[in-house]
Amino acid sequence: MRLNPVKGMRDFPPEEKLLRDFIIRKIEGVFQRFGFDPIETPCVEYWEVLRGKYGSEAENKLIWRFKLPFSEREYALRYDLTVPLARFFARHMPQTPFKRYQIDRVYRYEDPQRGRYREFYQCDVDIIGAEEPYADMEVLEVIIEALKEVGIKNFKVKVNDRRLIYDLFERRVKLEKDASIEVLRVIDKLDKMGIENVEKELKRLVGEEKAREIVKVLEECSSIDHAKNFVENCNYLKTLEMCIDEFKEVVFDASLVRGLDYYTGLIFEVVVEKPRIGSIAGGGRYDNLVELFAKNKYRAVGGSIGIERVIEVCKEMEMFKEVKKSVADCGVMFLKAELFSYALDVARKLRKLGKNVFLLTEPVSVVEGIKFFEKKGIRDVFIVGEREAKEKKVTVQDLEKREKRLVSLEELRAQSS
Amino acid sequence: MRLNPVKGMRDFPPEEKLLRDFIIRKIEGVFQRFGFDPIETPCVEYWEVLRGKYGSEAENKLIWRFKLPFSEREYALRYDLTVPLARFFARHMPQTPFKRYQIDRVYRYEDPQRGRYREFYQCDVDIIGAEEPYADMEVLEVIIEALKEVGIKNFKVKVNDRRLIYDLFERRVKLEKDASIEVLRVIDKLDKMGIENVEKELKRLVGEEKAREIVKVLEECSSIDHAKNFVENCNYLKTLEMCIDEFKEVVFDASLVRGLDYYTGLIFEVVVEKPRIGSIAGGGRYDNLVELFAKNKYRAVGGSIGIERVIEVCKEMEMFKEVKKSVADCGVMFLKAELFSYALDVARKLRKLGKNVFLLTEPVSVVEGIKFFEKKGIRDVFIVGEREAKEKKVTVQDLEKREKRLVSLEELRAQSS
Repeated sequence: MRLNPVKGMRDFPPEEKLLRDFIIRKIEGVFQRFGFDPIETPCVEYWEVLRGKYGSEAENKLIWRFKLPFSEREYALRYDLTVPLARFFARHMPQTPFKRYQIDRVYRYEDPQRGRYREFYQCDVDIIGAEEPYADMEVLEVIIEALKEVGIKNFKVKVNDRRLIYDLFERRVKLEKDASIEVLRVIDKLDKMGIENVEKELKRLVGEEKAREIVKVLEECSSIDHAKNFVENCNYLKTLEMCIDEFKEVVFDASLVRGLDYYTGLIFEVVVEKPRIGSIAGGGRYDNLVELFAKNKYRAVGGSIGIERVIEVCKEMEMFKEVKKSVADCGVMFLKAELFSYALDVARKLRKLGKNVFLLTEPVSVVEGIKFFEKKGIRDVFIVGEREAKEKKVTVQDLEKREKRLVSLEELRAQSS
Repeated sequence: MRLNPVKGMRDFPPEEKLLRDFIIRKIEGVFQRFGFDPIETPCVEYWEVLRGKYGSEAENKLIWRFKLPFSEREYALRYDLTVPLARFFARHMPQTPFKRYQIDRVYRYEDPQRGRYREFYQCDVDIIGAEEPYADMEVLEVIIEALKEVGIKNFKVKVNDRRLIYDLFERRVKLEKDASIEVLRVIDKLDKMGIENVEKELKRLVGEEKAREIVKVLEECSSIDHAKNFVENCNYLKTLEMCIDEFKEVVFDASLVRGLDYYTGLIFEVVVEKPRIGSIAGGGRYDNLVELFAKNKYRAVGGSIGIERVIEVCKEMEMFKEVKKSVADCGVMFLKAELFSYALDVARKLRKLGKNVFLLTEPVSVVEGIKFFEKKGIRDVFIVGEREAKEKKVTVQDLEKREKRLVSLEELRAQSS
């Protein structure tokens, strides 16, 4: 019998689950402080809801798409939380601006590697009915604040605009539509490949002249002001300028492209210097997605924290050592079957005092019991033996200090605080 | 474009999601007070992990089972949290007793109806390495306390034992194995069908004589003591007796059978008198499940709160009217584009004070803004106009009392508390 979870998916034992919940609650707290409301949508969607939204590579290779033995309908596990949000919005039509967050599972049939899974969580904030530049700035701010709240430091938010990408490359250099996707994919890898390799790749794709033109633009567009030299009619750059002015973490990056088909304006990606793990958050404006579901056009902008990578960063930087291995604050054990009822009393008293109490549900010797709780990382152990039951007391043992004391049930309150 | 979620699955708008989270956190709090630790397993399992655990009806008709276009592997969406727990336990081998809770989605291809869905949540507590009667009693207690914490009243916990069912019916009346499953299913419906209809059905299944014998047992076994008249060697009844003695909510019910194949000892079901919604929690002992995965035998007992029905009960009884429609405590609006930067200041100040602040991310008139926040159920609105910005103040409007006041940013602290 196979014991492993599905390839690319994970079991989280208590220690890991408690750390994840701790980090997720921090992020959720910031989302709520910005007035974003939670919603939930199912993990399964009809395939037709997702089809045509992510580009052909995702749709042919990455989406968990299937039929059941009892039906001809095609289903899919959701690929992200954004397309389901658009469906949700069109169905429920809440008033705009509609600000929601969702922290939930998504599914991609990727080749599993460090920080990349087939089932993972996304932490998304989105605004539908999103005016420029206000909504864009709010999304950047909530993402920045959430990362800070977790304790991530030394991150940069790279920003660009899809309209600028179009003007700088596709239109200026006159790329065919098919070539353009390939070219943009190469440009997006500038950070990893370096400029020489990018130029080499581009030559292969579009010939020497166009490649050199693209590289020139990339080299010269080190700021918005420089970018302005290459384009006319660039009112849309106001949003980027305001974001860069407002947030010290935000920097312009002409080579930032991002993959998803649906972006139309601002795009952004958050990167940390250490550890080298790629981007830990990203997002952008997608003004044309909601109208695929709703009758009218609704401008939208959103961001997503890559919680799996954030957790990786937290672990590598050894943050949150204080998160416990178990929820239990203390343990209760009894030495003989007939003492169970009294041990239950003790456990109940402690629980009434607000303690999380692990009752060892079988009679054990003192040595066995202490070994058990030591392994569990629990420090305060309450031992019920015959003497304790007779005298209506309990022995309290501090496993760290190696001290023990006999106290009455009435004294428990003071003892346990 | 289809806007509905998959049949039998649901979208939860903020109001609903906030209520669900509120109830779930209450239950989770009790699970933790009993020292149960959280774990998480994936929604998807290999089909072979689930196969052979739930009986043929579930496996042929109810499990979401599928292949992907890119692989020959058979997958399934989990049918419950218990079989994945057994796999998890065998893989990780934590020390026993291992007490864990999991509150998570499961999938069943049922015909959707009120309180029955194709994607729904289970709230499970289980103990692996579970000695009788201690672990059984702990599971009953944590379930009882969790339901009380939610505010559910007037519930009964019906208990029975699979070994008693075997002795009373299968062995005594000498049922063939195939007939036995059918007979038990009819017995389980005693509450709904009444004794006459049960007898009629049983006659059809096993003939007049056996049917009368079964009905006689059902009628006479109104307590454990009465049941003892029908069976020999019933040491196992000690657990039921202790549970009934310990908890005033627990009552013996000889007709309680429960569906899942894997139960081996104590079984229980929690029912409320009002509204009539069937059982809202259930569980039992399953001593033979874990060894299907692990090398050795591990006794286990667990319980599951039917959170979907609990939420139904809470709604029908109009509990938790205090749960808010939005996380936002207050709203901030600005009247002109150039006031945005100052409105951001105001929002940030309020957030620093611990408020959840919804910033209306576009310039609006006072009337529009107030209408927006009224609809959102937000009472305190902070208005930024030209005068406010010039004087470094903000107008605070209480939408309930219809009062407004101009206050300085320094006064916000007092104002907002």
